[in-house]
Amino acid sequence: MKTAIAASLFVSMLSAFPAMAQTNQPPVEDFKPSALNQPGQQYPQVNSEGRARFRFVAPQAQHVAVNIGRTQLAKDENGAWVGTSQPLDEGFHYYHLTIDGATVNDGGTLCFYGSSRLESGIEIPAKDQDFYAMKDVPHGHMVQDRYYSKIANAWRRIFVYTPPNYDKNAAARYGVLYLQHGGGEDETGWPVQGKADVILDNLIAEGKAKPFIIVMESSSVGGGGARGGARGAGRGGVANIDFTAGFGRVLTEELIPFIDANYRTLADQAHRGMAGLSMGGMATRQITLANLDKFSHIGIFSGGSISLEDVDKAPGFKEKVKVVFVGYGSREIGNRVGGGVGGDPKVNTEALKQAGINTVFYVSPNTAHEWLTWRRSLHEFAPLLFQD
Amino acid sequence: MKTAIAASLFVSMLSAFPAMAQTNQPPVEDFKPSALNQPGQQYPQVNSEGRARFRFVAPQAQHVAVNIGRTQLAKDENGAWVGTSQPLDEGFHYYHLTIDGATVNDGGTLCFYGSSRLESGIEIPAKDQDFYAMKDVPHGHMVQDRYYSKIANAWRRIFVYTPPNYDKNAAARYGVLYLQHGGGEDETGWPVQGKADVILDNLIAEGKAKPFIIVMESSSVGGGGARGGARGAGRGGVANIDFTAGFGRVLTEELIPFIDANYRTLADQAHRGMAGLSMGGMATRQITLANLDKFSHIGIFSGGSISLEDVDKAPGFKEKVKVVFVGYGSREIGNRVGGGVGGDPKVNTEALKQAGINTVFYVSPNTAHEWLTWRRSLHEFAPLLFQD
Repeated sequence: MKTAIAASLFVSMLSAFPAMAQTNQPPVEDFKPSALNQPGQQYPQVNSEGRARFRFVAPQAQHVAVNIGRTQLAKDENGAWVGTSQPLDEGFHYYHLTIDGATVNDGGTLCFYGSSRLESGIEIPAKDQDFYAMKDVPHGHMVQDRYYSKIANAWRRIFVYTPPNYDKNAAARYGVLYLQHGGGEDETGWPVQGKADVILDNLIAEGKAKPFIIVMESSSVGGGGARGGARGAGRGGVANIDFTAGFGRVLTEELIPFIDANYRTLADQAHRGMAGLSMGGMATRQITLANLDKFSHIGIFSGGSISLEDVDKAPGFKEKVKVVFVGYGSREIGNRVGGGVGGDPKVNTEALKQAGINTVFYVSPNTAHEWLTWRRSLHEFAPLLFQD
Repeated sequence: MKTAIAASLFVSMLSAFPAMAQTNQPPVEDFKPSALNQPGQQYPQVNSEGRARFRFVAPQAQHVAVNIGRTQLAKDENGAWVGTSQPLDEGFHYYHLTIDGATVNDGGTLCFYGSSRLESGIEIPAKDQDFYAMKDVPHGHMVQDRYYSKIANAWRRIFVYTPPNYDKNAAARYGVLYLQHGGGEDETGWPVQGKADVILDNLIAEGKAKPFIIVMESSSVGGGGARGGARGAGRGGVANIDFTAGFGRVLTEELIPFIDANYRTLADQAHRGMAGLSMGGMATRQITLANLDKFSHIGIFSGGSISLEDVDKAPGFKEKVKVVFVGYGSREIGNRVGGGVGGDPKVNTEALKQAGINTVFYVSPNTAHEWLTWRRSLHEFAPLLFQD
């Protein structure tokens, strides 16, 4: 396993360099509209090198810029600002435009909640995109539900993925994964950017994952800071949030009882997991460590890891926890998000393994702190869930 | 009934004039953020007169405009363009900004699919907003589902409202309303702008409507024109679309069988209805008239009406159709959308009543061709459904 990861990392880095070396070459002219465009919109486009081409009509503007791929826009004779990026990593990227000092979205794309605001998004097709592609397999449902939280003093919207044929298997009961977004995102992150439903539908159809329920909730509680924090900014601050106080209480005292009362769950610790990305991974780490009577499966994506010291401080950890999964993008290991929470993830993983704890460390090739890392992490983590 | 409508119309017009007469008065300074703003966003704001105040940071822009409420924006010392609208009608309004010739959305608000693109939206609180307010009542689910259409040669996303306790009443079966959006909108229109789930949850909790299932689908089929047509533009063209050929076939040959196979429906003509707004009303009119073996309840919101000539051409209409509901906004009656499809709605309604057909004509006070008209129309129509 370790050798395979090291090898894939090495290949990744090699394959990344040719793309970066092409910066002075003219782009390959096989551009197609991005899969995330609004219906009928021709721009932005993506080519086989992973370059993006933008086109934005602003005839009287003095300055238009796009904050992705070192793209230079220039105004053409039709008043449209056009430019082509350097090759981008595969997967989903947020971006926005600046027009004469105003931050705006590109009307060509759908909107995605990130950076504590709706942003534009572009999808660079990945070589392994098949695992999150819509296929002719049985599909689960993505259910929008609502519950009232006394702790937050508000109606809260949640999304609940129920696996294929949930409605028809009226006697079946399922394990539940509570799956959290990152800082500046909300409960729409996994259903939309994350493609959680499609990933699970495909895994279940291939017999690689057991059918289970996924619950997606915002970790924002009231006006507090858990929602806030622009991407990139304030990450150090996020690491210092006590998630067990606000969102942790909503989750364990209100949301879990609501889900167990309203969905056909296996309502015990052995069939309940929690995972999250970035800030959601940090929340997962804190909340599971403090509630090992409630969670047996732990997934931390780009949000830290669990050390042997953590294990020693959490009574019964070795007996109660079935899986610890830690995922990162190859381009983010060693940065402050990677190293800042709970120590070096590779060192921690090895230590937990040595201590006899079922631990998996996954590195997504050629991706940074972005959604393809997290889609792949879910894809690797889901087959490990509720196998007993 | 008729007197009540006439009286309410009269009151509506009176109450509208004082608002319009205040145009030279300074606004009442009780502005609050619109309910549709992105989390934490302070602008746009709305006051008790129904005026909107916009604020948009664009320090280097030469010209910024907003296409609603005859609003003049001026740049302040902080580089923000600020302005206050004339009083707006109650309810939901789409809008966008123009900045140095570029059409963009206001980063303060959520995005709503209208005008064949995502637009900004603002909500002017209505005096009767209680009927679409989130309350402490049992809530149904809004389910995102997918099915493959051979006719459209594509996976199609649908939203399915299942009423409260649908999952718990495993033996219960329900009638189904197929509910369509307008031109330039899509399957998100009724779940988001329309608040269809909240309206039904409240009606069911009050015992005013029977629990039923609502299916919301895009009427766009392939690259054809049924989706297209900007709001305001091309409406004459929409009226000439043959909906029975494209979307009508998808609906009757694929979607209805899918729903009846996957949800606990009462799968007969007596428990199946169709309704829609504007273009969706025109589609409803055509598709139900051509498929009276499949639909017993017909709702047309701001999209025409059914004449006695239509009835005479549709064999068995009087026996098969339980309800014809026609709704309009008071400010749109007589315009080309109102009068253009199937004749004068009031004249048609009276003629159908005279012929012994259960027909209801509803006029939404003080609203035009906008979502409050259609929320109210659904609120009036739902209690008439599946009463046998």
